[in-house]
Amino acid sequence: MKRKLSSRAVSEFLGTALLVAAVVGSGIMGERLAGGNVAIALLANTIATGAALVALILAFGAISAHLNPAVTIAEAMEGGIAWREVPVYIIAQCAGGVLGAVAAHLMFGMPWYSISIHARSGWPLVFSEFVATFGLLCVIWGCSRSRASAMPFAVGAYITAAYWFTASTSFANPAVTLARALSNTFSGIRPVDAPLFVAAQIAGAVVATYLFSWLLPSERKDTQPDASALTPAR
Amino acid sequence: MKRKLSSRAVSEFLGTALLVAAVVGSGIMGERLAGGNVAIALLANTIATGAALVALILAFGAISAHLNPAVTIAEAMEGGIAWREVPVYIIAQCAGGVLGAVAAHLMFGMPWYSISIHARSGWPLVFSEFVATFGLLCVIWGCSRSRASAMPFAVGAYITAAYWFTASTSFANPAVTLARALSNTFSGIRPVDAPLFVAAQIAGAVVATYLFSWLLPSERKDTQPDASALTPAR
Amino acid sequence: MKRKLSSRAVSEFLGTALLVAAVVGSGIMGERLAGGNVAIALLANTIATGAALVALILAFGAISAHLNPAVTIAEAMEGGIAWREVPVYIIAQCAGGVLGAVAAHLMFGMPWYSISIHARSGWPLVFSEFVATFGLLCVIWGCSRSRASAMPFAVGAYITAAYWFTASTSFANPAVTLARALSNTFSGIRPVDAPLFVAAQIAGAVVATYLFSWLLPSERKDTQPDASALTPAR
Amino acid sequence: MKRKLSSRAVSEFLGTALLVAAVVGSGIMGERLAGGNVAIALLANTIATGAALVALILAFGAISAHLNPAVTIAEAMEGGIAWREVPVYIIAQCAGGVLGAVAAHLMFGMPWYSISIHARSGWPLVFSEFVATFGLLCVIWGCSRSRASAMPFAVGAYITAAYWFTASTSFANPAVTLARALSNTFSGIRPVDAPLFVAAQIAGAVVATYLFSWLLPSERKDTQPDASALTPAR
Repeated sequence: MKRKLSSRAVSEFLGTALLVAAVVGSGIMGERLAGGNVAIALLANTIATGAALVALILAFGAISAHLNPAVTIAEAMEGGIAWREVPVYIIAQCAGGVLGAVAAHLMFGMPWYSISIHARSGWPLVFSEFVATFGLLCVIWGCSRSRASAMPFAVGAYITAAYWFTASTSFANPAVTLARALSNTFSGIRPVDAPLFVAAQIAGAVVATYLFSWLLPSERKDTQPDASALTPAR
Repeated sequence: MKRKLSSRAVSEFLGTALLVAAVVGSGIMGERLAGGNVAIALLANTIATGAALVALILAFGAISAHLNPAVTIAEAMEGGIAWREVPVYIIAQCAGGVLGAVAAHLMFGMPWYSISIHARSGWPLVFSEFVATFGLLCVIWGCSRSRASAMPFAVGAYITAAYWFTASTSFANPAVTLARALSNTFSGIRPVDAPLFVAAQIAGAVVATYLFSWLLPSERKDTQPDASALTPAR
Repeated sequence: MKRKLSSRAVSEFLGTALLVAAVVGSGIMGERLAGGNVAIALLANTIATGAALVALILAFGAISAHLNPAVTIAEAMEGGIAWREVPVYIIAQCAGGVLGAVAAHLMFGMPWYSISIHARSGWPLVFSEFVATFGLLCVIWGCSRSRASAMPFAVGAYITAAYWFTASTSFANPAVTLARALSNTFSGIRPVDAPLFVAAQIAGAVVATYLFSWLLPSERKDTQPDASALTPAR
Repeated sequence: MKRKLSSRAVSEFLGTALLVAAVVGSGIMGERLAGGNVAIALLANTIATGAALVALILAFGAISAHLNPAVTIAEAMEGGIAWREVPVYIIAQCAGGVLGAVAAHLMFGMPWYSISIHARSGWPLVFSEFVATFGLLCVIWGCSRSRASAMPFAVGAYITAAYWFTASTSFANPAVTLARALSNTFSGIRPVDAPLFVAAQIAGAVVATYLFSWLLPSERKDTQPDASALTPAR
């Protein structure tokens, strides 16, 4: 049974806030402590992000845990949520992401926000975001049919890997990308670089969704009209 | 079926002792070996603590594994345990925590205890503890309804992340905070800083519990009067 | 129910592509950031590979996720797939592996491919590959009978360990070995060293398969003629 | 249904061999690559050992996966196996451990064996081994009643933590202790120090077993006379 939209929106808001707090906060902590070794800072950032995803999808998945506009769009393509609910989800995720960045800054005694000057441009990085989000949706759709209860672990593990195997450290999430533009810290991104990241993310998600709708045809639409890949245990 | 109170108190005592031994002991070992690189010391501390939580909640959850007065208070608010049992739990957890710190010191050939001079003060750290414990209870309540068997993994993963994304390294536990005040090592905290940490932890737990009682209304009170979020497999 | 061969071949192709992208890409990133500390670079490479395996076997296991010709051969020995399908699988895996290496190079702004000059020769390394693949198939066959749903985690954990306990960093996969010969980066291997690696991998897989057919006799052939160890949840 | 003794002995032999190969091999690799940073070497050793335990208990648990004489003795105390089978288990585990050390040495191009000169003496280390094995058996007995399928993860997580929170890096296993005496490498132990380690391990296991037989009384003896805590999925 699907919860009412207001509950789901609060869940997306809160979950994305905690996710972005984890991404931005662990980036700040990692950079502060690593004494200039970027690999160690990124390792801390990676472990914190992957672990946070496991915990947050397990927890908020009881209500709604896309935590990612690219996932929301892919879900809508497959009928997991209604298209009219998509803007509500995306606004909740983006607002939550911004709150999460602000919370991370306040926890570390920094100004509420700061515009990032961290350049992340060039086609290799844009291609990286395409691959990262394509792979993320492959993992989500692959798990959604028969192993939904393992999906939180699969998503956390995938992002842990993708931090290292993509040149962009795998943002793979438009709401997180927006929030990271407001953080001039380790995990930030210049606002001017964000739009191509977001476009590549959505393209990767759409291509993976089309591919899996052929590769692993859903029986969901007929039999479980309300099913959502990321909220399997309802 | 709920075990008798004495068994549950021993379980809380022993589990919290092993948890604090893991936190304090791995801090000592990490600092000794890391050659001055604080990020590597904290990474070892993080991995040991997160892994210990998974193991201990899986093991002691068969009896009782709050291991945390903030969780016990939240459980009492939701009817998971009786309020009259709360003091017994908290005393067992605090006594266990102290024993765990002593055991860690003895394993590393140090004096039984030492008062920490590690300053952890200022509103950013207090806010960090509020966020850390708020998030912990979100994870616990989110999992408790439909994914209770995954909760040990969710809690371990959450604390792994929170070590890095909060400026305070996420104590998030009044009994552990008390015990760490008695350890003048890597993971210690000055006794004078402990009360605000504890207050922030309890506030975070209470706010998250109220929020989830609205967001994910419990059907437990009526149908499973004895259910405890952290002991799902009984 | 087994999916049709074309779907399974695409699944093997895509899964192996993402696996090799993870292995090669994280090796490049690790080496770039680690400032000359090979242990830290390998740690990043290890964590990314182990996590990718968990995610990809969970996701593509819904269709077919051997992702490894040595596993495909072992499956055919036990009747999990027909021998006539083996060449299709191996071609899909090798082609996917090459695509994954190319994708990793493009994500990091490097030429499409480059022949590795990383020497990996000598009997200790060949013996390492035998042990690595022997152990991998022990894990797969051991899990396949009664704990198939845990197998993705077992395989990911095993390879995480084997990266460090074998002198060859545990390639344990002929398709991945081929692809890594085309990458003159951290994880590359000289083409001249590849054939003995592949021979040792297949030998290890065959010995483990014979051993487990005695140690844990399969009831599969009679009762579940279509069962595949790595696609348990269908 | 319990497998026949010869199969279980081979399973204990092979599983312990792979476990010791993981412990010793990853110690060698970690020390070689870490450039003198002991924390990084131990982190690699830890991750490899914890991951190997998860994989090996999942895999060999289908037959028999104590992999540890202290666990075998504890199981016999609780009736999980017959006392007359205990010597067979212990011989298989010790022989497997020695083979694993030899295999690790050969993989790294070293002599078959070498007597360790790594001093590990003093009461803090002996007390550490008592605590380490006490905690290990708490985890095993705690999981055995109601969460047997999660036990491989609990044991792997526990040892991951115990590597860091005990001063002895948590051998916690007499067969592994014996094998590590034959390896003058990172993970070795002087033969003269081994007997007190083994005595402390057995003492810790026995105390934890008595404690849990009171704390969590077994219903096994009456209803499942063949049940073994570490082979839950048969």
